[in-house]
Amino acid sequence: MSADLRLEELAARLSPGALVTDADVVGAHSSDKALFCPTGTALGLVRAAAVDDVVAVMRFATEHRIPVVTQGARTGLSGAANAVDGALLINVAKMDSVLDIDEVEQTCRVQPGVINQDLKNVLAERGLSYPPDPGSVAISTIGGNVATNAGGMCCVKYGVTKDYVRALTVVLADGTVTKLGRQTAKGVAGLDLAALFVGSEGTLGVIVEITLALRPLLTPPLTGVAVFPDMESAGHTVSAFMASGAAPSMLELMDGATVAMINDYGDFGLPDGAGALLLVQSDAAGPTAVAELEAFQTIAEAQGAAEVFFSDDPADSEMFVAARRAVSPAMERYVGAHGGGELIDDVCIPRSRLGEFFARLSEIDARYDVEVATAGHAGDGNMHPSVLFDASDEESIAAAKAAFAEIMALGLELGGTITGEHGVGYLKRDWLVRELDEGARLLQTRIKESVDPLGLLNPGKMLG
Amino acid sequence: MSADLRLEELAARLSPGALVTDADVVGAHSSDKALFCPTGTALGLVRAAAVDDVVAVMRFATEHRIPVVTQGARTGLSGAANAVDGALLINVAKMDSVLDIDEVEQTCRVQPGVINQDLKNVLAERGLSYPPDPGSVAISTIGGNVATNAGGMCCVKYGVTKDYVRALTVVLADGTVTKLGRQTAKGVAGLDLAALFVGSEGTLGVIVEITLALRPLLTPPLTGVAVFPDMESAGHTVSAFMASGAAPSMLELMDGATVAMINDYGDFGLPDGAGALLLVQSDAAGPTAVAELEAFQTIAEAQGAAEVFFSDDPADSEMFVAARRAVSPAMERYVGAHGGGELIDDVCIPRSRLGEFFARLSEIDARYDVEVATAGHAGDGNMHPSVLFDASDEESIAAAKAAFAEIMALGLELGGTITGEHGVGYLKRDWLVRELDEGARLLQTRIKESVDPLGLLNPGKMLG
Repeated sequence: MSADLRLEELAARLSPGALVTDADVVGAHSSDKALFCPTGTALGLVRAAAVDDVVAVMRFATEHRIPVVTQGARTGLSGAANAVDGALLINVAKMDSVLDIDEVEQTCRVQPGVINQDLKNVLAERGLSYPPDPGSVAISTIGGNVATNAGGMCCVKYGVTKDYVRALTVVLADGTVTKLGRQTAKGVAGLDLAALFVGSEGTLGVIVEITLALRPLLTPPLTGVAVFPDMESAGHTVSAFMASGAAPSMLELMDGATVAMINDYGDFGLPDGAGALLLVQSDAAGPTAVAELEAFQTIAEAQGAAEVFFSDDPADSEMFVAARRAVSPAMERYVGAHGGGELIDDVCIPRSRLGEFFARLSEIDARYDVEVATAGHAGDGNMHPSVLFDASDEESIAAAKAAFAEIMALGLELGGTITGEHGVGYLKRDWLVRELDEGARLLQTRIKESVDPLGLLNPGKMLG
Repeated sequence: MSADLRLEELAARLSPGALVTDADVVGAHSSDKALFCPTGTALGLVRAAAVDDVVAVMRFATEHRIPVVTQGARTGLSGAANAVDGALLINVAKMDSVLDIDEVEQTCRVQPGVINQDLKNVLAERGLSYPPDPGSVAISTIGGNVATNAGGMCCVKYGVTKDYVRALTVVLADGTVTKLGRQTAKGVAGLDLAALFVGSEGTLGVIVEITLALRPLLTPPLTGVAVFPDMESAGHTVSAFMASGAAPSMLELMDGATVAMINDYGDFGLPDGAGALLLVQSDAAGPTAVAELEAFQTIAEAQGAAEVFFSDDPADSEMFVAARRAVSPAMERYVGAHGGGELIDDVCIPRSRLGEFFARLSEIDARYDVEVATAGHAGDGNMHPSVLFDASDEESIAAAKAAFAEIMALGLELGGTITGEHGVGYLKRDWLVRELDEGARLLQTRIKESVDPLGLLNPGKMLG
C-alpha cells in the first residue's frame, strides 16, 4: 500500500480536516524554537480535535510502524517537537478547553492545548492560581509544559510543573487510553506513573488531559532591585540571602550585557551601567515581605551592591517582571540587528557555586572569543547563558557551539545538570549520556522500551 | 549447593556480623505493623552497615535467584516489609547517618535509616525544616518514608515526601549502584526516575542514599479547635474553609469516638462529648494567621460548630498536636482493653465529598454492625477510618474485613483512592487492580519487569 493510500485510510478515521499533508503546512510545523537541531520530513500533520483523533493516529501508527511526534505550541528550546523523517505530527493545540475548575479541591482539569497564561487568567477570576510561569508563559501550552516539566521565575518558592500535576490521561503507543495518577491531594496506589510521564518529552505517550493542583490566588509581591558591579558579588548575595532562611517568591539575575539589551529595547526602569542586577520579590503576608526585602538589602550591600531599592507599588512590580520577561525579545532584537543568533543554555547548579560559575563562565567567554549574555533564575541556581554568534560566519557558529558545550560541562563539574528546565530533545541528547551514570542510562532505555516497545514515540529525542 | 553453604558464601562478602540466620531474630523481623497480611519464612536477615552490603546481597540474590525484601523500621501499615518465603531481608536501619546539610542550597543528604524526627531535630539546629510528618514520625525512617511516599499532617500546606526528594542513590536488582534525580532545585535531564522510585515500596531497587529539599524553619503556628455535633457539619466546614482560599498548615478531623478514646488516654485539653472535632493551624506570617483562624471560626460556626477557640500559646499548639498524635496509642489501648484489634483504612477523596463520605460511612458501620472510629487529614480529604473488631471472634473479624473493603469501594466511588499515604503492600494489592484501569495495570507491570527482570524485589507486594 502506498503512503498516500495509507494516509487516506487515516483521514477517514479522524475528525474532518484534521489531517494535513500540504508540504508547506507540514514543513511550517516541523520545528520548535531550538537552533542547530535536525528537522525531518514528516508524512503529515494531524490537528487533533479530540482524544479519539489521538487514539486513531496511534492505532494507525502502530499498525504501520510509523513514528509519531507530539506538539503543542512548538515553543520548546531543545528540538523535542521537531519532525522526524516519515513521522506523523500530532498537534494538540486545538484541544484547548478548561474542562473543570474545582474551588473546594483547588484543582482544575484541562486539555493539553490550553495556553498557560490563558489558564492563569481564567483561574484568577475564581480566586485561584497556577504558579508555574516559564518564559513562554504567554504562548506555550500546559501540555507542553507538562511534557517538559517547565519551570520559570516562581520556582524558587512555588516549584515546577511536576509539583502541580496530579493526574494525566495519556494515549499510549498502541492507542490505549489510560489514566495515571490521582485526582486527590494524596495518593500512593501503585507506581507513580504520572510523575514518570511529566518531563518525558513525548517519548512515552500523548498527554490528552491533565489534572492540576492549584493554589489560592497569590499575594501581590513587593519587588526589590539590587545593582552590582559584577556577577560574582550578585552570586554571593544569592548564596548568602538563601542561606539566611529567606523564602523569596522570585530571585532573578541578569548580567550587564543583558541589562543593556533590555534598556535598549524599552524603558522598564532598570538603571544603566550595571555590572549585574538582581530582581527579588517577596509575597509573604503583611510586614514579613518588608522584613524579607530589608534583609535582602542588608546582604546585598554587604556584598558590594551599588544600589538597592524596593517598591510596594504593584505597577513597579509589574514593570520589573516585564523587564525580566523582556530578556528574550530584547536579546532577539539585539542579535537580529547584528545578523546573529543565540544559543540559550540552561544549566542548573547548586546556588552556593554561583560565584564560581560566573568566574568560570568569563573564562569560557574569553577562550572562545564569543559574547555571552546571562540571565536566569538565580534563586534556584538555574542560569541561562546565551552564547551569541554571527550566523554568517561558520567559525563564529563553531565557537558558539563549543562554548555552549563547555557551559554544560561546567554545570556538571559544579554538581549541576545540563538542563534545568528546557529539556533534552535533540539539542542535548549527546550530553544526557554524560550526566547519567551507566545504571541510570540503562534504566531509562529499558523503561522507554517497556512503555513504547516499537519505539514509535518521538524516536531519536532525549534518549537518542 | 545447600542453602547453608550459600549463606556462608554471602556472609563472607558482608560486613562482619551483618548476616543473621537465627530463626527467632529473623522471625521477629518478618512483619511490619499491618494486620491480616501473609508473613513468609525468610532465609536470613542482613543488617546492612554500608552500601557495599546491599550490593553484595543483590549480586548474591541475582546469582541464586533469591527474593529480597527491604526494610527500615517496619512501621508500615500495609505489609510491604513482610518476609516472603525463601527471601533475604535487607534491613537498612543501621545506615542512619546524616551525611551532609547544605544551608545555601537548603538540602540534606541522608542514609535511609535516619529516623524522621531525628532528622527534624538536627535540621532545626541549623534553622531548617523537613516538613513531612507521618504519624510514625518518631519511629519511622526516611528510607521507609520515601519507599511509601509518606504523608502526615503537614501535607495540606507542605505536601508529601515526594515533594522533597531530589535525588536517590539506589542499588538495582543486579547490584548496580546508580544515582537518580538531581542535586539541584531544578533538573529535567531524562525521565524522572527518582520520582518513579518514590512510593515504589521496595519493588524497584534498594534506596541507599537520599537528597532531600528542605525549607527554612517553619513559623510556630496558631492553633484552633472547633467542636461539632456531627461529622457531616465538620466535613462541610472543611469544604467551605478550603474553598474560601484558606491555606492552613494543618486541618485534622476526629470523630466523637476518637475524641473519647483520646480523653480516656490522657488530658490534652479536648472537650468531652464532641460529635466531631477539627484541629486547624495557620503558620502564615504575622496577623494573617489570626485572620485565617477568624475566618475558620466564622465558617465553622455557620456550619453549626458548638464551640470554636484558638490560642497563640505554643504550649497549647503542642498539646493539641499531641492530642492528634495520641489517636494511634489511644486507640491501641482502647482495642487492647477490649481484646480487640483495629484495621486502619486510608482512603483519600476530594474534600468536597467529605460530608457524603461520612454519611455513607455511618451506613457501612450500621450494615456490618462494627465500630468505626475515624480520624484523618481532612484538609487533604485523607481519612483513616479504623474498623474495630473482637480478635477472638471470627465473625467480628470477617465483618471488619468486609467493612474495611467497603470503605475502599466508597473511596473509589467518590472519585478517590484506596490509599492516600499508607501504601498497597500486601494489604491492598487485590484492590489496586480495581483502582487502576487496564492500561495503567499493564504499564505498571511492564515497568516493574523492565527494572527488575527476574522479579526478585519484594515479589507479591503492590503489583501482586
